[in-house]
Amino acid sequence: MDERVREHAAVLVDWSAQIEAGDDVVLSIGPDAHDLAVAVAEALGERGANLLSTYASGELTRAYLRAHDGDFGEDPAFERKLYEEADVVLSLGGGRNTSAMADVPSETRQAYRKARSATREARYDTRWVSTVHPTRSLAQQAGMAYEEYQDFAYDAILRDWESLAEEMAKMKDVLDAGSEVRLVKDGTDLTMSIEGRTAVNSAASVRYDSHNLPSGEVFTAPHAPEGTVIFDVPMTINGEAVRDVRLEFEDGEVVTHEAEQGEDAITEILETDDGARRLGELGIGMNRGIDRFTDSILFDEKMGDTVHLAVGRAYDACLPEGETGNESAVHVDMITDMSEESRLEVDGEVIQRNGRFRWEDGFEG
Amino acid sequence: MDERVREHAAVLVDWSAQIEAGDDVVLSIGPDAHDLAVAVAEALGERGANLLSTYASGELTRAYLRAHDGDFGEDPAFERKLYEEADVVLSLGGGRNTSAMADVPSETRQAYRKARSATREARYDTRWVSTVHPTRSLAQQAGMAYEEYQDFAYDAILRDWESLAEEMAKMKDVLDAGSEVRLVKDGTDLTMSIEGRTAVNSAASVRYDSHNLPSGEVFTAPHAPEGTVIFDVPMTINGEAVRDVRLEFEDGEVVTHEAEQGEDAITEILETDDGARRLGELGIGMNRGIDRFTDSILFDEKMGDTVHLAVGRAYDACLPEGETGNESAVHVDMITDMSEESRLEVDGEVIQRNGRFRWEDGFEG
Repeated sequence: MDERVREHAAVLVDWSAQIEAGDDVVLSIGPDAHDLAVAVAEALGERGANLLSTYASGELTRAYLRAHDGDFGEDPAFERKLYEEADVVLSLGGGRNTSAMADVPSETRQAYRKARSATREARYDTRWVSTVHPTRSLAQQAGMAYEEYQDFAYDAILRDWESLAEEMAKMKDVLDAGSEVRLVKDGTDLTMSIEGRTAVNSAASVRYDSHNLPSGEVFTAPHAPEGTVIFDVPMTINGEAVRDVRLEFEDGEVVTHEAEQGEDAITEILETDDGARRLGELGIGMNRGIDRFTDSILFDEKMGDTVHLAVGRAYDACLPEGETGNESAVHVDMITDMSEESRLEVDGEVIQRNGRFRWEDGFEG
Repeated sequence: MDERVREHAAVLVDWSAQIEAGDDVVLSIGPDAHDLAVAVAEALGERGANLLSTYASGELTRAYLRAHDGDFGEDPAFERKLYEEADVVLSLGGGRNTSAMADVPSETRQAYRKARSATREARYDTRWVSTVHPTRSLAQQAGMAYEEYQDFAYDAILRDWESLAEEMAKMKDVLDAGSEVRLVKDGTDLTMSIEGRTAVNSAASVRYDSHNLPSGEVFTAPHAPEGTVIFDVPMTINGEAVRDVRLEFEDGEVVTHEAEQGEDAITEILETDDGARRLGELGIGMNRGIDRFTDSILFDEKMGDTVHLAVGRAYDACLPEGETGNESAVHVDMITDMSEESRLEVDGEVIQRNGRFRWEDGFEG
């Protein structure tokens, strides 16, 4: 076994999920994530945690959903209780085909997503962490050779997370003190309120309310967006290629949407429920270990010199105690490149210009 | 997909587990059982059942158990409740190496087995069915080519189960009316009581309290065995090859055991707990679709002209209402060939001689 697989498992278990003896851990395993799963199982055994493995296969879900009549009823108790009782959910992505669900009718997908909301909430109430095992299918999606992709993924994952967390704390301080964020670049001028919201220093650890490995972003839950934004980073959403999405917001909601490619996928998402037309997240990518777009949201949204917004569900961690933010069955991130001819302002002050942060060499206020 | 995979899934879902809309189904999937899992997921979707998939990998379990200090504590609630709430557990065996767990210390295996007894009981309280997807690893264990093994497996699985059930009902009637069973062949003379016990017509359906696919045996829960029995069918038990096991019973318990090969594996099993030295099952193989031994208990014990006994746990279905039979953390079957120079008697009357049943042509009482 590649020693980096064991290192990945150790970062996931110790830094990200903070596993301790006696923790009840659900390990969700993609069909090609077997090797990472074995390494994680070994680490969980060493730490004295309890382990239940689930199988997360797009092909299986596709077969199930396509055969179903679409009337899913309520969340079944057996699945909900599993997550209610669990302390931790570790999700190891890694399929054989990132388009495995491409021919599942969108109504079916939406109905299933809605029917499973209580189960999903129970998962989010655990110390959950999502990561991926670098597979050939992800390498293909990134347009990279397999070994090249492995190097890329481990460079992003096996980082000095404590030191990155310190750097990201600066951005969190700015956002926590601020009231309004403005994004400006060619075709984009969007303002949104972050009044009363708390930013998350997403350092790939539940200690920081951060649930992705790799991570390396600072995010918050904006509201009341006004204006227009273009997402110029190519993505695959629900198996469909999407390019150059343009959203126009009025009174906090999407009123117009278009895309050069994959507009249907965006339409489908926006029509899921009311919350799907509002913002759930503003995230600022700060992981400079990620040096290119690979058409995988887990990596792309963390890349330095990018900003992303999500329509849909807001994370509770960004909200005042007891307050619920935007609710939705979806949470879909879209990314804009901030490396050139762009600026990010907080309360009128430029925090990032042309890819440089205020505290970095080469920043021109 | 081989059409037989879909037929297998349909038999499993409709005949074996009697799935109905709204059933909460746990689907346990071996790493190489993916294709069957997809077909089963499709069938479950069609029937409107709920589906949660778990991943059953010997390699994962090995890594976990070898790393663990062996102090497993009690059954964790998250796993136990999953099975307590489930209606059905469908287990699709199919790994890549039948010896995947060979180097897990026996004390660790036993400790884990004991610690998970409440979870196991909860699984047994569902409409559980175990089957296997014919994999290359099972073909290798059987000493067969892959396609040859697929033909073998589907011949055993895709049978006219209703008609076999009718034939097996004759054997059930004999056992239900009887008090004492005697097995006689070279090196074997064993008597055991079946007084007050109910035989199961194991026709591969929960309708018959039968939980294996393929099945094709009639079994009961004997007690008070006296005498000696030789199991001359080669087997692999916990990853170890076992040949010619000889057990001697006095006052209902194993007092001597030996084997030509794999004696340690037998010793380990017998030392699990008190119940592991007593009998849990007497089974009479009646599936003549299985035409050879393949070193897989699921198939071998169902083969026509064989009888098997299990040490360890007895199935509740064979016991009077409210009575608990032999309890143990193990249930290990061992098989003896009854095709030649042998007889099976019930209350002194010969029921099977040299492989022919009383109601068959060629029987010589």
